[in-house]
Amino acid sequence: MKYKFSHIALSTSSQDKRVLPIATQVFEILNNAGIKVSFDENLSELESPLKIKKRSTKYIIKNAQLLIAIGGDGTMLNCSRRYGSEGVPILGINLGKVGFLTDISPDEITSRLLEVIKGDFIEDKRFFLEASIEGKKETYIALNEVVIHSGAIAQLIDFDLSIDNAFVYRQKADGLIISSPSGSTAYSLSGGGPIVSPGVDAITLLPMFPHSLLNTSPLIVSDKSGIKIEMIGKKSKAVLSMDSHNSIKLKEGDIVEISKGKSSLTLFHPPGHDFFEACRNKLGWSSSFSNN
Amino acid sequence: MKYKFSHIALSTSSQDKRVLPIATQVFEILNNAGIKVSFDENLSELESPLKIKKRSTKYIIKNAQLLIAIGGDGTMLNCSRRYGSEGVPILGINLGKVGFLTDISPDEITSRLLEVIKGDFIEDKRFFLEASIEGKKETYIALNEVVIHSGAIAQLIDFDLSIDNAFVYRQKADGLIISSPSGSTAYSLSGGGPIVSPGVDAITLLPMFPHSLLNTSPLIVSDKSGIKIEMIGKKSKAVLSMDSHNSIKLKEGDIVEISKGKSSLTLFHPPGHDFFEACRNKLGWSSSFSNN
Amino acid sequence: MKYKFSHIALSTSSQDKRVLPIATQVFEILNNAGIKVSFDENLSELESPLKIKKRSTKYIIKNAQLLIAIGGDGTMLNCSRRYGSEGVPILGINLGKVGFLTDISPDEITSRLLEVIKGDFIEDKRFFLEASIEGKKETYIALNEVVIHSGAIAQLIDFDLSIDNAFVYRQKADGLIISSPSGSTAYSLSGGGPIVSPGVDAITLLPMFPHSLLNTSPLIVSDKSGIKIEMIGKKSKAVLSMDSHNSIKLKEGDIVEISKGKSSLTLFHPPGHDFFEACRNKLGWSSSFSNN
Amino acid sequence: MKYKFSHIALSTSSQDKRVLPIATQVFEILNNAGIKVSFDENLSELESPLKIKKRSTKYIIKNAQLLIAIGGDGTMLNCSRRYGSEGVPILGINLGKVGFLTDISPDEITSRLLEVIKGDFIEDKRFFLEASIEGKKETYIALNEVVIHSGAIAQLIDFDLSIDNAFVYRQKADGLIISSPSGSTAYSLSGGGPIVSPGVDAITLLPMFPHSLLNTSPLIVSDKSGIKIEMIGKKSKAVLSMDSHNSIKLKEGDIVEISKGKSSLTLFHPPGHDFFEACRNKLGWSSSFSNN
Repeated sequence: MKYKFSHIALSTSSQDKRVLPIATQVFEILNNAGIKVSFDENLSELESPLKIKKRSTKYIIKNAQLLIAIGGDGTMLNCSRRYGSEGVPILGINLGKVGFLTDISPDEITSRLLEVIKGDFIEDKRFFLEASIEGKKETYIALNEVVIHSGAIAQLIDFDLSIDNAFVYRQKADGLIISSPSGSTAYSLSGGGPIVSPGVDAITLLPMFPHSLLNTSPLIVSDKSGIKIEMIGKKSKAVLSMDSHNSIKLKEGDIVEISKGKSSLTLFHPPGHDFFEACRNKLGWSSSFSNN
Repeated sequence: MKYKFSHIALSTSSQDKRVLPIATQVFEILNNAGIKVSFDENLSELESPLKIKKRSTKYIIKNAQLLIAIGGDGTMLNCSRRYGSEGVPILGINLGKVGFLTDISPDEITSRLLEVIKGDFIEDKRFFLEASIEGKKETYIALNEVVIHSGAIAQLIDFDLSIDNAFVYRQKADGLIISSPSGSTAYSLSGGGPIVSPGVDAITLLPMFPHSLLNTSPLIVSDKSGIKIEMIGKKSKAVLSMDSHNSIKLKEGDIVEISKGKSSLTLFHPPGHDFFEACRNKLGWSSSFSNN
Repeated sequence: MKYKFSHIALSTSSQDKRVLPIATQVFEILNNAGIKVSFDENLSELESPLKIKKRSTKYIIKNAQLLIAIGGDGTMLNCSRRYGSEGVPILGINLGKVGFLTDISPDEITSRLLEVIKGDFIEDKRFFLEASIEGKKETYIALNEVVIHSGAIAQLIDFDLSIDNAFVYRQKADGLIISSPSGSTAYSLSGGGPIVSPGVDAITLLPMFPHSLLNTSPLIVSDKSGIKIEMIGKKSKAVLSMDSHNSIKLKEGDIVEISKGKSSLTLFHPPGHDFFEACRNKLGWSSSFSNN
Repeated sequence: MKYKFSHIALSTSSQDKRVLPIATQVFEILNNAGIKVSFDENLSELESPLKIKKRSTKYIIKNAQLLIAIGGDGTMLNCSRRYGSEGVPILGINLGKVGFLTDISPDEITSRLLEVIKGDFIEDKRFFLEASIEGKKETYIALNEVVIHSGAIAQLIDFDLSIDNAFVYRQKADGLIISSPSGSTAYSLSGGGPIVSPGVDAITLLPMFPHSLLNTSPLIVSDKSGIKIEMIGKKSKAVLSMDSHNSIKLKEGDIVEISKGKSSLTLFHPPGHDFFEACRNKLGWSSSFSNN
């Protein structure tokens, strides 16, 4: 067989009406190529005329060699945490504009998809962030960022930050954003954080509306760092969130431990993928002075 | 009579244990000087051995020539909105460190207070911001800032901003801070806004975590500007807050109108008050290179 | 006569080849309207086939009711300081893209100019900054900004800043930018300063690469402020520049005094001029989410 | 022998009067410990009563097991480039305040030095940046940062940036700072760059006063990146500088290539050295709320 894949899964987290026709189109392309296609359970919520059996997350993780995520940033983040963290490579079809994680726009699905299934793609490894609360079993993962915050705007939380058990600072702020390179072009960037190129082995820490009016530059630490944030103050109503998704309540004395996750994400991009091109498009970076 | 005032009121919004002894001390100093003293209703919540009748807000506004606010920033903001906006000048005794609005620290109450009641003080005029929702009667005032936000961190609101009926921009952000010069050293500063000297006739607009990744510098407009913010998007869960205090729900299509308030605040400072000294103390600005 | 003006002058500081044909076109339009046209001496450097007598700056200031500046930002700044500060209103024809000061682009000269000479224009008042060195006679003016700097990158100057004789801070930095609202969208903006709307009575102070790593937010003061910067340190090689134009050497102990200039500039804009539209165009502010 | 070192060299770049007595003190401590001491040629400019033969850079590189740098940041940077890049570990005695690179202050020389020579020290590896102009032989190294700039403030250079041969952006700016983690707390920080922890394998790119008013966040790339900056524009008067030290003229078409240097620097710190403590001291980060 001339194709690189024999089994590909499809998933979405989007309610967009274009998901179903696109899923159908992708199904036909893959089917015609003799590739087995599985739809995950999220797609079953869409009223589909396709007679395709919905498959469990577990089944897909075990069998699929690639997962195609159809939707926007939310879909990519969900699929990355659910399938990508279990070793399934992800390819994104973006229903909005081309984003930092997704590459294929709706008007070029067929040609791009054929390239990828023929084995013509770029592999892009990303790391997850893993967070847990000292003394508790649960572990949470985020592709973009972990945020510890007060749950409300203009409400402060107090915390002590340490890196590899060395005390860094005590801060009073609306919150703290801890982002991976993938997350550096997401929420962290809106808060003034730097753009961290996908290959960099670093984690960015950015205080949100720090009450201390002294120097509060973003801090970049190694991805091998053990980050600890201890919640202080009785009145503190802090919340831990992963990719703006979970919302775990924290109480005084809780120590949140954050580190690079054990698993990593593999994104597949069609040939020609270029991180800096996405930056130019989305950030208004000029490619020539005529735009300046 | 040698004193400038014949009737002074005391107020607090603080639960701090030092409020009562300080209120007692202030009462005695004023009483010895033959000045009539009124306590506002907030002070009645404190278990006071003082046999002083509590007075209503209305009574104090009508009769007091000065209100002494005992507490922190919250007390100052409350007293400013409640009494200052009705024409009663405010003097602050700060239970924390000396702030941007308050001057008198607990260890110099007697000497500073005697200076002030003898008429040796500096007058400092501040303007309020006034907000209302188009088509509704209620008007809200803030001394520091009006914030329109999503009510939650990393959740976006969509809005159109116009100044004097000229369209400025459409923005997707966690929120927008509209601050007076008084507020420029408060929440706005934490978000990267400029420090606006008390005498400047200007209002600062600062987007919070703007989703648009293009230029989002703070915008300074005249204090005579009519600022309108129209909420767009069905899913929008925006909230209007004044000095981090109210929490008025906004819905799609609501137009929030913000302008300089009709009344103004008069702060009394002991002689020697210096805005830039407060900046040096609180912001780490150096007064000589030995600190650098 | 149906036109608002009987005598209009033309000037440029640009070497651009398009200046001469545009000057010719403008001359013809005005000539046909029966308006007297004077060319200033700068235009004489261009080899002109026009048989128009060159006029002195003095003559133009005395006689012209409007000066049309043909060129880019440099031309506008020069004409503003030379003619605008002497009371001649300025209208800008921009050879580059439409800027913050100029309005008329080369492809709409005729229609826009006819509107203006018929009296259909918007008046826009701007203030100059005035600088002098204590004890010296010379006074310098700038429309955009006064910069005090080391003359070289990554070389520090030491200075004490005071506002209205109140000490603000001692700073070690590459320099300090003092900008008018007009200058807030120029060099100051590149350094992270706020956008100050043209009508605001304020001056912005922005340290350049401050060595003090503490809070160094931009500072906004009233346009009535007397700003003094005292140069300290023997090795200091500071330089004073106005609109990136002069280069006056400063020595230890020199005190530079900066205030709002006595004269003001009147810009004439064609109808429909909109400051915020210029911001949207140049700063990538979105007017709808489709661009976002 | 109980000491870790048998031969230690001393160097300075400072003209400070304290250098000679400190050098004398250090010499005596080492001499008493039976350690051979070499002074480098820079120290010979100081009028020393010590009868110590001055040694060449070459001799020191060959023989010394440690170089003690006496002075400020300039001394550390010079010694690092001169000896550190050739494999000699560096220990800094700071004549100013304790900095980010140096640890030993003049009031604790004896105790700290004895610890170090007994082998009780922390090793800290730093990388250099290496720059060259395409087609030319010379290679330049910097510990903190490479800066490409116009040589003057408010004068623009035009350049194309590429990373690993992928085009990033075309920029018009006063310059571009390319800094190592060591340099992240130096000039880059003054320009708003992030703090990069010493262990991070990353290079920071920060435009200086970018003319493009769009998003110009700092960019963090891997230390394995090949960075190329091509100078464009005939009028360009760009200059290349290393640690604010060299000043190599660039002309149109020059391509500056910057990468991680081949050699690395080893700093020796006395026990207890803590990067974040230096941050707290120098950046005003609070260690408790009492300072806040």
